[in-house]
Amino acid sequence: MTQQNYPDSHPVIALMTDFGIGDGDVGVMKGVIAGIAPEAHIIDITHNVGPQNVPSGAWILAAGYQYFPKNTVFVCVVDPGVGSTRGAIVLHAGDWYFVGPDNGLFSYIISEQTIHAAVLLTNSSYHLHTVSSTFHGRDIFAPVGAHLARGLTGIFSELGPSVDPATLKRLEVGVAVRDGNTINAHIVHVDNFGNLITDIPLNMVLELYSVTQVHIIFKENGIIVEKLRQFFAEGPDDGQAFIYGDSSGYVGIAVRNGNAAKTLSVGFGAPVALITSEA
Amino acid sequence: MTQQNYPDSHPVIALMTDFGIGDGDVGVMKGVIAGIAPEAHIIDITHNVGPQNVPSGAWILAAGYQYFPKNTVFVCVVDPGVGSTRGAIVLHAGDWYFVGPDNGLFSYIISEQTIHAAVLLTNSSYHLHTVSSTFHGRDIFAPVGAHLARGLTGIFSELGPSVDPATLKRLEVGVAVRDGNTINAHIVHVDNFGNLITDIPLNMVLELYSVTQVHIIFKENGIIVEKLRQFFAEGPDDGQAFIYGDSSGYVGIAVRNGNAAKTLSVGFGAPVALITSEA
Amino acid sequence: MTQQNYPDSHPVIALMTDFGIGDGDVGVMKGVIAGIAPEAHIIDITHNVGPQNVPSGAWILAAGYQYFPKNTVFVCVVDPGVGSTRGAIVLHAGDWYFVGPDNGLFSYIISEQTIHAAVLLTNSSYHLHTVSSTFHGRDIFAPVGAHLARGLTGIFSELGPSVDPATLKRLEVGVAVRDGNTINAHIVHVDNFGNLITDIPLNMVLELYSVTQVHIIFKENGIIVEKLRQFFAEGPDDGQAFIYGDSSGYVGIAVRNGNAAKTLSVGFGAPVALITSEA
Repeated sequence: MTQQNYPDSHPVIALMTDFGIGDGDVGVMKGVIAGIAPEAHIIDITHNVGPQNVPSGAWILAAGYQYFPKNTVFVCVVDPGVGSTRGAIVLHAGDWYFVGPDNGLFSYIISEQTIHAAVLLTNSSYHLHTVSSTFHGRDIFAPVGAHLARGLTGIFSELGPSVDPATLKRLEVGVAVRDGNTINAHIVHVDNFGNLITDIPLNMVLELYSVTQVHIIFKENGIIVEKLRQFFAEGPDDGQAFIYGDSSGYVGIAVRNGNAAKTLSVGFGAPVALITSEA
Repeated sequence: MTQQNYPDSHPVIALMTDFGIGDGDVGVMKGVIAGIAPEAHIIDITHNVGPQNVPSGAWILAAGYQYFPKNTVFVCVVDPGVGSTRGAIVLHAGDWYFVGPDNGLFSYIISEQTIHAAVLLTNSSYHLHTVSSTFHGRDIFAPVGAHLARGLTGIFSELGPSVDPATLKRLEVGVAVRDGNTINAHIVHVDNFGNLITDIPLNMVLELYSVTQVHIIFKENGIIVEKLRQFFAEGPDDGQAFIYGDSSGYVGIAVRNGNAAKTLSVGFGAPVALITSEA
Repeated sequence: MTQQNYPDSHPVIALMTDFGIGDGDVGVMKGVIAGIAPEAHIIDITHNVGPQNVPSGAWILAAGYQYFPKNTVFVCVVDPGVGSTRGAIVLHAGDWYFVGPDNGLFSYIISEQTIHAAVLLTNSSYHLHTVSSTFHGRDIFAPVGAHLARGLTGIFSELGPSVDPATLKRLEVGVAVRDGNTINAHIVHVDNFGNLITDIPLNMVLELYSVTQVHIIFKENGIIVEKLRQFFAEGPDDGQAFIYGDSSGYVGIAVRNGNAAKTLSVGFGAPVALITSEA
């Protein structure tokens, strides 16, 4: 994990949405940002979060935000409730700022970081003149993020009234539960190589690379994965799945030069149990 | 709608192509731009316009350009006629500049904005030294866009001879036609969520959210959509399609937490009729 | 081909990976870069190289790098051997710098450019504090690339010990072989339009557009392509494939307004023979 300062002359705005990249919607958000904060460096996290899949977006954000510079403004839009009564918020959490809907997308952030302040984005002078009912990414979140990146703490409190962080919406995600030698967990991400990532933090199984035996059971189809490897290049040549410590900081399952999700016919949300035993 | 100034030290170049993002072609265009205009901020609108689908590209550009800062240079390449006799042009239209093939891609721009000037890109001193017959995006449009972003009006007239705007190619798109209580129109875009966008401007049906009744018929399969909702979150829970005002400024059809294109088996180009009646 | 200088105040870092754009991994690499080199302009070549397809990545890089400004730092990660004993390297080759695994990804660069220097990336003071076994893109290649972009030659020799360029790994790719009137070659890329690109450089068949007859045979299915066109717009209207000079500098096969890969049922790696004869 690393956090670096950047000169105030180079603010960073990081975007994550489920808009895909075929529609021009992301480009339009960047156009709005460039008009307000022309000096900002805009970085895409991803725009391919599963449509309206808030838990998946929450995990992708969680796996990456700590690698961004201090003061980065994250503008995140996975927002099936757009136009309803769900709140629009900004959090100052740890060394970063998070702008988006109050629908659980920031669950991991709230769990992991100190929330210095949270406000509701009700001050329309920081929004576009006309706010649509379906594209708050363009009309509210992008302009607020851009104004914030320019002014940071000076503007933060002007964006709207304070919210008690305890009232913010949280998903029940990322909660692997230990029960003796068993950790009950879920697949929370399938990456581009078909690797299956669980919500079991590596620091929950420090014995992973000790002499202890470990295996993972997929509860729905009964498949058991027993082999444990430190590197992909160490994986079995025979196409069998193996357990590894994913770079996101969580336990994963992979197939060497293959696709574990396809090989095991397992996807997002699948329940698993990791079981340890003395060697 | 919003237009913002940006300091001349931060020119913006917006790119739209049908090149996809798997080939490196878009990256090469950006490499060329960075060599000529290193201070430019490059923004992707999309590179996933349907291959050689000029009408689709024209609509995507139309839905977004007004949100970009004044003086943004749009470099747009959906160009099935590359290497033929179709012209290569730049338009100074409204507050923006548009670089690309003269094949109808700028039809909406020409309809909606004042054309201050248009020139043919024949001056090869603003192109790469060697111009291929198949990749004008790299060899002509990117370098012209980059030079233009640096110099704007100072360079504009040097790029080639003036063209009479009346002679520019236009598609017959975006022409919803009212006939009494009926508006005959087409689906001109399917977005990432499967929402179906028509070419009926919201200001053509101001009665949309009044007491007037409204329904849409898909002419090919006879499906009728009757429900009208302001927000996605208001949509019927039962998976039925509903009519809404899309953030692009056009009438759309959606399914709450679902995919209207799949549900209704309807795609790009489908003819529709919107029919209003007193309540 | 063009190479341009850029002011040192605008370093360019170009990224190419097989990470896809759905995971946030590319965004995380950019976050790391922004923390170290906030003034750098980051350009994506592509992140959709076929998973772990080193030969494909090598070709995509080869087709584009010469269009980037002098001193561009290329950070390239297609790395099935991550965590194994394969080396991590940086090359100063021609006017550019190349950071990535020593697995053949830079084969074309090594063939085409003078290697001024090559070093092994063993100096951990230029890496992140904690280096994972599976994500060297984030932990080693991105930070090294960012430090390099800031310091270039001043930092180069500090990154690790020198390597003899002759020992660098090379793929046997891009080696079309002439045998009398026959050139034996392979399909090394399928582009977004389904065009099939061979590893036959255009300068190997200068007679392509002379009076000489030419045809290409697909060895696996016996299909013969005979027609030769300079522009896509010149291609046959009947959907037949034709030979053309691709903008990458290699011989290609296309179908006008169609998809040659689908029409001919041919893909990456297919062996071909190009045969010339007097007219």
